[in-house]
Amino acid sequence: MKHKLRMGMVGGGQGAFIGAVHRMAAALDGEIELVCGAFSSSPEKSKASGAELGLAPDRCYGTFKEMIQREKRLRPDRRMQFVSIVTPNHVHFAPAKMALENGFHVICDKPVAFSLKEAIALEKIVAKSELVFALTHNYTGYPMVKQARQMVRHGAFGQIRKVVVEYPQGWLSTHVEASGNKQASWRTDPSKSGIAGAMGDIGTHAENLAEYITGLKISELCADISTFVPGRLLDDDGNVLLRFEGGAKGILHASQISAGEENNLNIRVYGEKGGLEWRQMEPNSLVVRWLDKPVEIYRAGTPHLYPEALAAGRIPGGHPEGYLEAFANIYKNFAYCVRAHAEGRKPDPIHADFPTIQDGVRGMRFIEKVIASGKSKAKWVKLG
Amino acid sequence: MKHKLRMGMVGGGQGAFIGAVHRMAAALDGEIELVCGAFSSSPEKSKASGAELGLAPDRCYGTFKEMIQREKRLRPDRRMQFVSIVTPNHVHFAPAKMALENGFHVICDKPVAFSLKEAIALEKIVAKSELVFALTHNYTGYPMVKQARQMVRHGAFGQIRKVVVEYPQGWLSTHVEASGNKQASWRTDPSKSGIAGAMGDIGTHAENLAEYITGLKISELCADISTFVPGRLLDDDGNVLLRFEGGAKGILHASQISAGEENNLNIRVYGEKGGLEWRQMEPNSLVVRWLDKPVEIYRAGTPHLYPEALAAGRIPGGHPEGYLEAFANIYKNFAYCVRAHAEGRKPDPIHADFPTIQDGVRGMRFIEKVIASGKSKAKWVKLG
Amino acid sequence: MKHKLRMGMVGGGQGAFIGAVHRMAAALDGEIELVCGAFSSSPEKSKASGAELGLAPDRCYGTFKEMIQREKRLRPDRRMQFVSIVTPNHVHFAPAKMALENGFHVICDKPVAFSLKEAIALEKIVAKSELVFALTHNYTGYPMVKQARQMVRHGAFGQIRKVVVEYPQGWLSTHVEASGNKQASWRTDPSKSGIAGAMGDIGTHAENLAEYITGLKISELCADISTFVPGRLLDDDGNVLLRFEGGAKGILHASQISAGEENNLNIRVYGEKGGLEWRQMEPNSLVVRWLDKPVEIYRAGTPHLYPEALAAGRIPGGHPEGYLEAFANIYKNFAYCVRAHAEGRKPDPIHADFPTIQDGVRGMRFIEKVIASGKSKAKWVKLG
Amino acid sequence: MKHKLRMGMVGGGQGAFIGAVHRMAAALDGEIELVCGAFSSSPEKSKASGAELGLAPDRCYGTFKEMIQREKRLRPDRRMQFVSIVTPNHVHFAPAKMALENGFHVICDKPVAFSLKEAIALEKIVAKSELVFALTHNYTGYPMVKQARQMVRHGAFGQIRKVVVEYPQGWLSTHVEASGNKQASWRTDPSKSGIAGAMGDIGTHAENLAEYITGLKISELCADISTFVPGRLLDDDGNVLLRFEGGAKGILHASQISAGEENNLNIRVYGEKGGLEWRQMEPNSLVVRWLDKPVEIYRAGTPHLYPEALAAGRIPGGHPEGYLEAFANIYKNFAYCVRAHAEGRKPDPIHADFPTIQDGVRGMRFIEKVIASGKSKAKWVKLG
Repeated sequence: MKHKLRMGMVGGGQGAFIGAVHRMAAALDGEIELVCGAFSSSPEKSKASGAELGLAPDRCYGTFKEMIQREKRLRPDRRMQFVSIVTPNHVHFAPAKMALENGFHVICDKPVAFSLKEAIALEKIVAKSELVFALTHNYTGYPMVKQARQMVRHGAFGQIRKVVVEYPQGWLSTHVEASGNKQASWRTDPSKSGIAGAMGDIGTHAENLAEYITGLKISELCADISTFVPGRLLDDDGNVLLRFEGGAKGILHASQISAGEENNLNIRVYGEKGGLEWRQMEPNSLVVRWLDKPVEIYRAGTPHLYPEALAAGRIPGGHPEGYLEAFANIYKNFAYCVRAHAEGRKPDPIHADFPTIQDGVRGMRFIEKVIASGKSKAKWVKLG
Repeated sequence: MKHKLRMGMVGGGQGAFIGAVHRMAAALDGEIELVCGAFSSSPEKSKASGAELGLAPDRCYGTFKEMIQREKRLRPDRRMQFVSIVTPNHVHFAPAKMALENGFHVICDKPVAFSLKEAIALEKIVAKSELVFALTHNYTGYPMVKQARQMVRHGAFGQIRKVVVEYPQGWLSTHVEASGNKQASWRTDPSKSGIAGAMGDIGTHAENLAEYITGLKISELCADISTFVPGRLLDDDGNVLLRFEGGAKGILHASQISAGEENNLNIRVYGEKGGLEWRQMEPNSLVVRWLDKPVEIYRAGTPHLYPEALAAGRIPGGHPEGYLEAFANIYKNFAYCVRAHAEGRKPDPIHADFPTIQDGVRGMRFIEKVIASGKSKAKWVKLG
Repeated sequence: MKHKLRMGMVGGGQGAFIGAVHRMAAALDGEIELVCGAFSSSPEKSKASGAELGLAPDRCYGTFKEMIQREKRLRPDRRMQFVSIVTPNHVHFAPAKMALENGFHVICDKPVAFSLKEAIALEKIVAKSELVFALTHNYTGYPMVKQARQMVRHGAFGQIRKVVVEYPQGWLSTHVEASGNKQASWRTDPSKSGIAGAMGDIGTHAENLAEYITGLKISELCADISTFVPGRLLDDDGNVLLRFEGGAKGILHASQISAGEENNLNIRVYGEKGGLEWRQMEPNSLVVRWLDKPVEIYRAGTPHLYPEALAAGRIPGGHPEGYLEAFANIYKNFAYCVRAHAEGRKPDPIHADFPTIQDGVRGMRFIEKVIASGKSKAKWVKLG
Repeated sequence: MKHKLRMGMVGGGQGAFIGAVHRMAAALDGEIELVCGAFSSSPEKSKASGAELGLAPDRCYGTFKEMIQREKRLRPDRRMQFVSIVTPNHVHFAPAKMALENGFHVICDKPVAFSLKEAIALEKIVAKSELVFALTHNYTGYPMVKQARQMVRHGAFGQIRKVVVEYPQGWLSTHVEASGNKQASWRTDPSKSGIAGAMGDIGTHAENLAEYITGLKISELCADISTFVPGRLLDDDGNVLLRFEGGAKGILHASQISAGEENNLNIRVYGEKGGLEWRQMEPNSLVVRWLDKPVEIYRAGTPHLYPEALAAGRIPGGHPEGYLEAFANIYKNFAYCVRAHAEGRKPDPIHADFPTIQDGVRGMRFIEKVIASGKSKAKWVKLG
């Protein structure tokens, strides 16, 4: 009889967006059970949130410190086994550090920290802990993103020459943070979000997706970073030229003032022999173009895919899976690795596939460099 | 502190497709917990399946009879509260009947029964029981299907004139039931599926969707029913002319030999002033056409929708939700009504929105008449 | 030095839609020159129309009779070489007959005649004349329609099982013929259009397209024919079940009350091994689906096409060609055959590819039978 | 009786691509007649090409000089009225200059010249001549591009913030110029094409389209220019950051090594209140997104358009028009202005709408600056 993994959550109280997403993603596959949480910095709100989620009052904590300390004292077969961190960026590092140092695996929302410095410190803590750490760059969880990665990796397109990755949104086209929109407020507040707005919130997703699919590292970049909405404290738009190790060139642009756009993350990759195109808003298709053959549409859940892509699907082709399923794939693979860790097994690479602290460090480095480039008169800034 | 509803499952053992779908749909929103099951007619397989799902051996039963009898004797705060029936068609009626007669609510896969006769009998049992009964015509759970229904209902298009509903699939293009495909085997076996193949398996979804969106009832039909694959025992394709009460005309076609099609359920509805188009494989868009304005694309999760459509979504526009989320909406609304029943509340119509036993009876009547029409030389067969 | 072919036109005076289309189609490839016309039954209007088109007054005639008689007397290197007939249906037969009997080739708008009887009579006249006769079922002129036909013909999909052809328009959703819309007026007037409205105007295009692509003949049909707009004298919507020689089944529906639809002719064909989909409003793509491979998109102007499809294009892939180019392909091929006729050459089949009087007869037979079926209580009407 | 305008052509002999396009574009609307040409630098080839086009030998010249001199001596009602220049870039300036100085209007392929210096010189010659000069940036001829321009101009989107314009092609992904591809050969030869390859051939189209639609001028740019294919002498890919006068930001990228792409010019423009998207490969739709309304699809040929867009269409919505029709719109408007010039009329702005020598100068400036930026270590280069 298989037991569900026991999860504790930091953040994600009533009214939070991403906390609810994490819970649905964790629940979908029946592998994980929410057993406790520090859902809010207010103990009352934390208890109220937990009660709504069916938790007993004694498992709803006022702070993550309390949660980690108290859970640690519970019986091993009762206490939480990992912590899910779904707070704004400035409250990632401390709970992650404490959880890891107390023996709990961690799954953390992105970007991984408030600053590059924090991220690098956390990387060391993770390494020392020998525990499982996952970062929810959820878009890498889509089956067709995995198919794209495998096609590049297996050389279908020859050497990669050009990458175009875009992440336009329009929801910050007006000064909504001034009128009580919670999601907007912390994201545009440098004390919570860090030095970047759009480039941190969604630019890092674009950067991560490009590197995940191509297997290439960005070596240098040249950015034009803007704040279009008067009164806003952080960037809401950025256009970036990219150069990759090995000679590929690219473009990355991310925006939260692209009026009318929903969540239009998309990527195109071109190699010597062909290229691919994937769009998050229609995630079950992967358009593949060739120099010498008709365009092909690879579809999620069909037998033509690499095992990595098939393993990321739950239902047959034509039954669309979406954002929550892709998010759940991060949790499913994380859970798989937590179990493997407990059992001392070496995980199968097909399932040990989720963003890690290294991706987190790269993301923070990208944020630092892209913001620096935006302020620089020099053309190229090295990513290092 | 809110408790999860406790679900028992009939069918859905190892290797089953739709059972796993029901479990994910039930799990997604954290409202429902699987507590027991009769997953297979073999007690060993049932226990093995349950163990994989994290159930204790004593809650894994060899038969639905055993499950219902034994669960009934458990403490009220421990026993299952409803039964989910995910078996092939010929094993819907008996467990549904027994569950209802023993005080358990029921959620059942479609078509509701093996025959119209069974469906009518079940309708009486449901009525007598005063319990909640839901039928998983899951496609009505999509937000944009609900938006479509509300737009028609609020008269956006004027009187409806024409409906085109299609359900092409291609997976039965060859004689796969002869080579061990389990999903194909029972669906093409008259002793398990009933008198219809494709028309029962997917034709009923099309019929249900057309009536759900338009609010119109099919009054008569004229069908050309075919079996293209040699050796197949039931229909694999059907083309049907429809007439609706009130004068609208329509076309319904469903096929499992439309080679290369995945699961391409779609519908178009035309009225005096405009029309709509919805496609299951891109479910988050609803195309709306007007006589006197540009085409509009309504999108799931955006503020332009009716409350019924917004309530069926979990995340903002551009974060695609899919088949499992739509399926989960049936469970969520069912769960809501089960709770309302327990608390003696009259449910809010926005949430009391899922297919019922009446839809099940209509579906069985459709099956009977469409197959009869296929064999008839008369042009029109009344649906009654 | 190559000379342009000299064309005379019947109909197509000021304000006409299809006449202007024919002229652009004839002009595009520089093969044809308009030299005379009987553009209107009023000699003044005919002269005014001709003057606008750059014709001398003595080549603008008051009647087609006058045109044919007078042109016949001109020097062979000056007189028109063929007649283009672009009048409403009731004025197709007489000018076609007279032109053929006086030695002029004919290209005629569809449907070929006012009645099946006229069409059959014309078939004999064409045969006797040994001249070239083309019917402008222009949709067969699209490159990707030709590609579709060749793929079927070469057996790419195995035996064809199912055909779905649709032609929804919405422009007759209201009683526009009552408010002076000329295009609507004659099309809904039985004295000009014949026994059918939508089924003649666009239903025949659908019928022709289905038979052209599949190479199969419709053997019997079952129709539900409607007039939705009060006061209208002819049908504005029709839903039809089809059976083809050899066992394929199908659906054809055509409508002019599908509110908001522009000119959405489209077809899907399914065989044993795969299928295709073509949509007139995005005519440069042909979607091809397979049982055992990813979906392919064949594109106009790319090297992956059959010679017949390549010959129908003028520019490379990605430079979209449209309705006028497809229409011009009928003229181009017709011109090719007129030249071949003059030179006593046997035309190359790749260019001798346009609808003929036989297609015209089939179209008129379809009209007669589909209208008869609409009135019949018998399920099936044979097309013969 | 209206006479056709008489056109002489420079270039466009047998085997040329763009010459044939110009001829079809000129022929489509029946406004223009080809009367003479210097189709090739070889008199024999010129005569052979002309003969195929139905021209008498005495109107087929061996050089543009001969053509201009000889035509000038013909009777005014016989001689050509304008010259169409369809040669490679290095043979634009000389024939344009001579034609204008001898009283002939000019329509010229893009880019307008071999260098910025030539373009500036030509600008003065045009001004002095007081004749009509059109540049075939044909993509501005599409109806939905005109609709886009008018929507921006009328303030539908408020102030423009961001522009993304892309022009990916893949046909130069390999070293095709080495294997006899004529189109590739001159385009990659600095002695014929100038200092730029892809950036001149298609980058200028992107630049022109962005400025045409937005009405904004690019003020500075930052480019990463690449040559991916070994042995190639000019750029085949460029990624460019843009800044516009007034504060809008943008991205332009053009590529001929985006393997598998056909001719995928597209643009997105975002303002304060909404944005638009247009794609050349599906040119009859304009996607319009709003902050506070559902997405709209404006369609060519429908009554919801601005007069400028309607005037650019020939047939009703749903009858797709393409590349040749858009190209023909440049010719149609040019012809309109040539007639107005002859008649001393001031042209109506709706028809006096085509790219001019000023657009040509801007295009050459763009080429010079974008290539300079590609070589520069400074971040921004002013366009001036």
